[in-house]
Amino acid sequence: MAIGEVMLGIDIGGTKCAAVLGTPGGEMVGRVPLPTDPRRPPAEIVAELVAAARGLLAAHGLPPAALRGIGVSCGGPLDHESGVILRPPNLPLWDAVPIRALLQEAFPGVQVEVENDANATALAEWRWGAGRGCRSMVFVTMGTGIGGGLILDGRLYRGASGLAGELGHQTILVNGPLCGCGKKGCLEALASGPAIARLAQDSLQYGRGRPLIQRAGGRAADITARHVVEAARDGDAFARGILAEVGGYMGIGLANVIQILNPERIVLGTIAVHAGDLLLGPIRDAVAEFAWERSASACQILPAALGDRAQDLAALSLVSLNRGGGGGALEHSG
Amino acid sequence: MAIGEVMLGIDIGGTKCAAVLGTPGGEMVGRVPLPTDPRRPPAEIVAELVAAARGLLAAHGLPPAALRGIGVSCGGPLDHESGVILRPPNLPLWDAVPIRALLQEAFPGVQVEVENDANATALAEWRWGAGRGCRSMVFVTMGTGIGGGLILDGRLYRGASGLAGELGHQTILVNGPLCGCGKKGCLEALASGPAIARLAQDSLQYGRGRPLIQRAGGRAADITARHVVEAARDGDAFARGILAEVGGYMGIGLANVIQILNPERIVLGTIAVHAGDLLLGPIRDAVAEFAWERSASACQILPAALGDRAQDLAALSLVSLNRGGGGGALEHSG
Repeated sequence: MAIGEVMLGIDIGGTKCAAVLGTPGGEMVGRVPLPTDPRRPPAEIVAELVAAARGLLAAHGLPPAALRGIGVSCGGPLDHESGVILRPPNLPLWDAVPIRALLQEAFPGVQVEVENDANATALAEWRWGAGRGCRSMVFVTMGTGIGGGLILDGRLYRGASGLAGELGHQTILVNGPLCGCGKKGCLEALASGPAIARLAQDSLQYGRGRPLIQRAGGRAADITARHVVEAARDGDAFARGILAEVGGYMGIGLANVIQILNPERIVLGTIAVHAGDLLLGPIRDAVAEFAWERSASACQILPAALGDRAQDLAALSLVSLNRGGGGGALEHSG
Repeated sequence: MAIGEVMLGIDIGGTKCAAVLGTPGGEMVGRVPLPTDPRRPPAEIVAELVAAARGLLAAHGLPPAALRGIGVSCGGPLDHESGVILRPPNLPLWDAVPIRALLQEAFPGVQVEVENDANATALAEWRWGAGRGCRSMVFVTMGTGIGGGLILDGRLYRGASGLAGELGHQTILVNGPLCGCGKKGCLEALASGPAIARLAQDSLQYGRGRPLIQRAGGRAADITARHVVEAARDGDAFARGILAEVGGYMGIGLANVIQILNPERIVLGTIAVHAGDLLLGPIRDAVAEFAWERSASACQILPAALGDRAQDLAALSLVSLNRGGGGGALEHSG
């Protein structure tokens, strides 16, 4: 296949980074992974990512002019407008790193978009994954934390100060369990990976959950969300009960989102993908109970579709194909 | 003042209607109110509104060609796309009334926009009231029900099936009091006008609230939200306590909206306007408790500013000044 124009995606995570080349259609052309040693200066890592990108272009016989745009996906907080990374919790040395300016220095004249990873993954799922073809989609990350990205009327909605989509920190239970954010009863405190583990550990009474403890190597304190999901998939009733409870909380949170935003689709990542209908079933049941029928019936609830490619595609998805709108409008190409 | 172009607003409510003429700047030119007898055929009432509009134009020496556009504000449900009113609860005879087609027949060549009253009032507050000048605003009705209209990134957001903004039906208390919608623990069941009255009535124990009972004519069952607000304004501690409790619920609901949408402003109508800081104070306190500081600090919480003119201006606000966008984009003119 002859490659014409390409997009460069830079994914920056707490343990690994990657430079990826892709076509405007979302086909991967090449990829260079790099470890993110959090003790190394960010400038060194950025220089390596730039060298990797140049190497990818050269390996495919592409001149720098073939680069249609660059997308950078990174954990927040960051400033989308100025393209500066603002000290993400998992990257303490990345304090006010002007990633856009650094990349524009390396690739003069190429447009660079910088976005937090939840928004970027929302765009990727919307452009190439489970959100394809709809105008209003809510993407929900479900892992260590619960976050989200909002595609509303065909564009990414960031909010007044870039903090939209924090639906993991709506209050589900007044005076509920303490959340990592300092508030109580947040959805994240009830349905994230650590919340699933804690709920399983707290539910071990009267001899319940022995197979789960064995799966965790004999120590209840070592039970993780992964153990719960795996046990549930293997038919363990205790683990399935935990997922049913968690799905109930998630369903209340999604019902609230449905009442407020009336989206066409909600796409759930990570844990929901691994657990499948064992979690999506209880989620859909709770949505049916806590949202209006006419709003809930307008909204499909689906697992994310991009799997392992999500992070690479998230960075690539930031490269807009229709320029000119400004104001963060990032429309579908076709 | 010489009048050039004008806009026609048609406000259709359960007890009264109005035809109003206004300038593109939101200045009222003239107004004809009409009672809405719910037993009369809608076609008759529409014909009277058309005659009233023609009379207003003639009275100001304006030809029909001076009409820049027509906006119709009505209680939902309605179909914005086709311009059809779909049997609002307070207008049982208005079943599938093609209001846009009827008005276009009367005023050929004039564009007609039909919108539910919460969305229309949101637009009016954004264009001429408390939301002026911001890009993302949530308008919250606070009366018999709790509803909302969302202005996101400078345009009205309606959702996938026109049901966005139903923030009164997010769940605040799981297994809380029954809501008129059939769900339990909705914000509307905890902070609407009827909820305020019920909360006051339910709190009358140990001789509390005697002044409030007197204000209601001696019967506890006759206490309304208006009595509670008036007593609170007069310094009654019991009534103030009721508003503080209600403000707490409303604050949780608004905190959720802030976490999800990160708006620049939230504008509260009716009861919040009447009660002022007696309600807005507790609301702001609860928002500070239940939303992130960095999201809450980005959002002003204000009473609506249009007062008695809100319904007329709501209809007028639907007339867009920048045509051509399509897809419901209704942008500010300047």
